[in-house]
Amino acid sequence: MSGTPPPTAAVLVIGDEILSGRTQDTNLATIARFLAPFGIDLAEARFVPDLEAEIVAAVNALRARYAYVFTTGGIGPTHDDITADAIGAAFGVPVEHHPEAMALLAARYQPGDFNERRQRMARFPKGGTLIKNPVSVAPGFQIGNVFVLAGVPKIMQAMLEDVAPRLTRSVPVTTRSITVALAEGTIAEPLAAIQAAHPAVSIGSYPFFGQREGSTAIARAAGGTTLVVRGREEAQVAAAADKILSLVREFGVNPS
Amino acid sequence: MSGTPPPTAAVLVIGDEILSGRTQDTNLATIARFLAPFGIDLAEARFVPDLEAEIVAAVNALRARYAYVFTTGGIGPTHDDITADAIGAAFGVPVEHHPEAMALLAARYQPGDFNERRQRMARFPKGGTLIKNPVSVAPGFQIGNVFVLAGVPKIMQAMLEDVAPRLTRSVPVTTRSITVALAEGTIAEPLAAIQAAHPAVSIGSYPFFGQREGSTAIARAAGGTTLVVRGREEAQVAAAADKILSLVREFGVNPS
Repeated sequence: MSGTPPPTAAVLVIGDEILSGRTQDTNLATIARFLAPFGIDLAEARFVPDLEAEIVAAVNALRARYAYVFTTGGIGPTHDDITADAIGAAFGVPVEHHPEAMALLAARYQPGDFNERRQRMARFPKGGTLIKNPVSVAPGFQIGNVFVLAGVPKIMQAMLEDVAPRLTRSVPVTTRSITVALAEGTIAEPLAAIQAAHPAVSIGSYPFFGQREGSTAIARAAGGTTLVVRGREEAQVAAAADKILSLVREFGVNPS
Repeated sequence: MSGTPPPTAAVLVIGDEILSGRTQDTNLATIARFLAPFGIDLAEARFVPDLEAEIVAAVNALRARYAYVFTTGGIGPTHDDITADAIGAAFGVPVEHHPEAMALLAARYQPGDFNERRQRMARFPKGGTLIKNPVSVAPGFQIGNVFVLAGVPKIMQAMLEDVAPRLTRSVPVTTRSITVALAEGTIAEPLAAIQAAHPAVSIGSYPFFGQREGSTAIARAAGGTTLVVRGREEAQVAAAADKILSLVREFGVNPS
């Protein structure tokens, strides 16, 4: 790898419903895939409950360390939506009704329905800028390097569209995946040698068990391994992947 | 709430494949649901890449703070499986081949196939005890309050069976869920009052959008809210849930 290091990001998933196992998080993977074409590496994630002190500690740890922090959850109108106040506390700034957010929300509801609780969804930490919500209007916000997004997956995903132009781009990671009907222990030793010879890439080995859908030899096999080569220099990724292809063919299997 | 505080746990998900978005984690929710009947609260989760310093820092932060730590991933035979060494470094102890793990693995493979790389799967930090793997033999281990489990979901889940007898039981959380075809902003104000009047429970409000499967009024509605009451005192949970039921009926909707 050469040049300046790529920007890094962290995700902070906020909500009792995730840690209780009630709700399966999908936002982490969505954000990781969203960041990939920008060349931004997702370097860490934390999941915390709806407790202000926990959110404050996590936000401050992550925003000091990574170029970007994405939070999900806790920006609705109910008593358990405490993310705006917690982010304000983390930055040491007051939380105020944001005029643009108030106008957007006021236009959405019938006059009598825009109650005090719904107006809370327009409260941002001082200095925060609005992140548009094309699904259900109630906005997210950015303050410093922290992007505060909704927890509902389709709303969170839609908000990322308004985040995209604010991010610094870097060289994206190139990925090559090779799936073989071989146990990973069978090829682990020569695979380690290929990794050692190609320090500019990272080679991941991911076993799977049981048959897969489809009619190929790999789908019919009882299990196998997917080998993933990742790196920012395409030629290096290709060179390592070619060595892996040669290796698995020595074992008499055809990769897919 | 009365008596001693319930034990807490944290999950540490280890692996580049999760943070890159390649693989959707499901182990966090599985562990949360596994812990619920033991009365153990999952209080935090962290996701880190396959980097020893990151694993060491996260394990040491979590094991100092919570009663139990569950790690997933990185215990296979390949070069990117570094969890055992990282846990050894976190505890400041050497990592050694464990006789019982060696015997189990030796019995699984044909003599020529039990190579040095596969023998690495029997390496535990000194003082570690074996966690059985009824799916694919290669074991996990426990050291102190840290349980080191596989990343493959069905293996991870099977290992939890051997973890269960090692956990201290507490009073489980009782949960009541009430789903209504009402926007959460409509009931947010009286809901906050119910929460304030019932500090022994936590009330979560989770909106959903779009129609659901089924033929009830709620399934046919364009959206709604699920209200979840959680607490360790059943009478308190029931009292808060009854107030929520009365509240939503005032709005003329039938909960499910």
